[in-house]
Amino acid sequence: MNIIPQQCNAEVAGRIGRIASELAARGIDAILLSNFANLYYTSGRVYCGYAYITATGCVTYFVKRPNGLEGDNVVYIRKPEQIADFIAGASRPLTVAMELGIASYNTIERLKGIFTDATIADATPIINKVRSVKSEFEINKLKECGVHHATAYHNIEKVYRSGMSDIELQIEIERILRSEGCLGQFRIAGDTMELFMGNLLCGVNAETPSPYDFAMGGGGLDESLPVGCNGSLIKQGNTVMVDMCGNFNGYMTDMTRVYRVGAIPELAERAHQLSIDIHHRLAAMAVPGVEAKALYEEAMRMVKEARLEEYFMGLKQKAGFIGHGVGIEVNELPVIAPRSRDTLVAGNVIALEPKFVIPSVGAVGIENTYVVREGGLECLTNAPEQILELY
Amino acid sequence: MNIIPQQCNAEVAGRIGRIASELAARGIDAILLSNFANLYYTSGRVYCGYAYITATGCVTYFVKRPNGLEGDNVVYIRKPEQIADFIAGASRPLTVAMELGIASYNTIERLKGIFTDATIADATPIINKVRSVKSEFEINKLKECGVHHATAYHNIEKVYRSGMSDIELQIEIERILRSEGCLGQFRIAGDTMELFMGNLLCGVNAETPSPYDFAMGGGGLDESLPVGCNGSLIKQGNTVMVDMCGNFNGYMTDMTRVYRVGAIPELAERAHQLSIDIHHRLAAMAVPGVEAKALYEEAMRMVKEARLEEYFMGLKQKAGFIGHGVGIEVNELPVIAPRSRDTLVAGNVIALEPKFVIPSVGAVGIENTYVVREGGLECLTNAPEQILELY
Repeated sequence: MNIIPQQCNAEVAGRIGRIASELAARGIDAILLSNFANLYYTSGRVYCGYAYITATGCVTYFVKRPNGLEGDNVVYIRKPEQIADFIAGASRPLTVAMELGIASYNTIERLKGIFTDATIADATPIINKVRSVKSEFEINKLKECGVHHATAYHNIEKVYRSGMSDIELQIEIERILRSEGCLGQFRIAGDTMELFMGNLLCGVNAETPSPYDFAMGGGGLDESLPVGCNGSLIKQGNTVMVDMCGNFNGYMTDMTRVYRVGAIPELAERAHQLSIDIHHRLAAMAVPGVEAKALYEEAMRMVKEARLEEYFMGLKQKAGFIGHGVGIEVNELPVIAPRSRDTLVAGNVIALEPKFVIPSVGAVGIENTYVVREGGLECLTNAPEQILELY
Repeated sequence: MNIIPQQCNAEVAGRIGRIASELAARGIDAILLSNFANLYYTSGRVYCGYAYITATGCVTYFVKRPNGLEGDNVVYIRKPEQIADFIAGASRPLTVAMELGIASYNTIERLKGIFTDATIADATPIINKVRSVKSEFEINKLKECGVHHATAYHNIEKVYRSGMSDIELQIEIERILRSEGCLGQFRIAGDTMELFMGNLLCGVNAETPSPYDFAMGGGGLDESLPVGCNGSLIKQGNTVMVDMCGNFNGYMTDMTRVYRVGAIPELAERAHQLSIDIHHRLAAMAVPGVEAKALYEEAMRMVKEARLEEYFMGLKQKAGFIGHGVGIEVNELPVIAPRSRDTLVAGNVIALEPKFVIPSVGAVGIENTYVVREGGLECLTNAPEQILELY
């Protein structure tokens, strides 16, 4: 079995080329990757080992596991020190980028031993920048996710039964998503983020702050995973916000829709409509060359104009962003935040999630995943945006 | 809301005391923790921030998120540099342990700046050693997991329908586990491990090696998560091995049972019985003071005596261990492996999983989670051990 799945051959070559160009532009001779998301990006497959890519565009896959992967550029190793034997003589790099922002301190110290004379640079911003611009191959994978994601959400109304708790409904939605092909695993960068298959928030639980840097919180079922559902009953007058995992093929879309049980206050309806209006406004405005922070500022301007700031992005604790890149992981570049230094590029894929928490009611607002195109945003998660009634 | 949940007060005090003793014994003045599993261990709650514990037994919780946690020793910070202000003057540590084996290189380099004059030691082996010996409080949490785990497995036979694929059965078992209270999240140490809610292996797919260091493999549904189910139909003459997530309360049991559809070869039945026999043999032998590697050697002796080595712990790729500690994470100390340097201690909780892969049939063998007691192993995952028929 070739390490590069056949359908990924041309795609992987393109990615290696883009990484090589980025290395050359920065005067870095090579990059050594071992994070699963980065290995998947550079080969089309998750394996245990390392990808070594030079600024001249050569890639070597150093594989520990699984057995049986093939390819001209596949080298089986048992320990990283063996990489040194393959990088000898004239081709020895003077500067090597490693995943300083991801790999453990001990791991990096060990890997440094492979390149004793080299200067070490940080691979994280380099690979994150390259990954933030999606190819048409990747956009097609994301489109496929969006279709499955929307199809699964379409079935949410069918599994609701009056008297359910938030977690009972979440379990049924998990089953719908898995049956639709969701791989479950929620890939997320950084060591202070974790979530099990997404977040469902209902009623006052939406007000509870969580330790994680997600847009919304929730108390969770247990102190060991304090986010999302807390087991409370879904009551008349509650909203139910569903923001669940859209990983159907190694890529993931991010999508939120809101439901209600019975009538909800006009404030909640108005805030939800404002979220939709923000989406439409930003979808037209977000063309290549626009600063990510300008999108945040425009959303905040609209929220202030509507005098809904106190509910925006949380009540007792506010998220500091309204959107983020998404792809192999749920938190990629660009970040749509007030201090973001990112500028939109054609091929960025971003999830926008202007949301509100309404006291005693729950969370409202939608999230869609979009591709940045020359003419604005193209939506990948197409489904009704209004609040739907559960009964 | 106090950072330490009320029911954890005495327990957390005991843990802090044990960590302090371990620091004192090693001549280390303090330990700084930020990994979620370690924060949960030292407070009873997951939060975003740091726990700073001195060899004199003082703990300070530096919290970034969520808002609203209380306690005499809680200090809210926005960035880790603020920790320096609280560790000034005479109490300034000369040696500080940090999570060098877990936290990223960049994170550790930044944290080093807080303790400019101090020597840095590795916190990972210290905290892992302390966590490997469970208190009765922890054992009770694990017992609770074992009861739920066994209850959920009892319902597996009820959801099987002839003609199902492996993933269809797995989705139904996920629902059973979640409905029984499983929190879903599969906490695992190390950056080369990932799994979504456990592993179900059926038929020839059990032979496929995976990139991960689990006992068993499987090809998975997608190159982005190549482990477990591959979507194949469960056929007559197949075994179905269920090794799914037992995290019901922040702690987790690990438990495997095997099912069959129709008749399976005598070889498969014999190998499964040998797994049960190994469990019974090791359960009597595994008393405090016994070396972990002696358990591995005894299992291997029994396997060789039965001439079943070629099937043991994988066919095309073999796992290098037959058991592991389990608690907050699924891969804790001690490790039951040939080169393990661990010695059993009363209060260790270990999962034993001597397993076999039988060509064209599937995987067999059971896994139970045990507490190491003075008289041997006490089983926490009590359920029928024989292969059960699905029909």
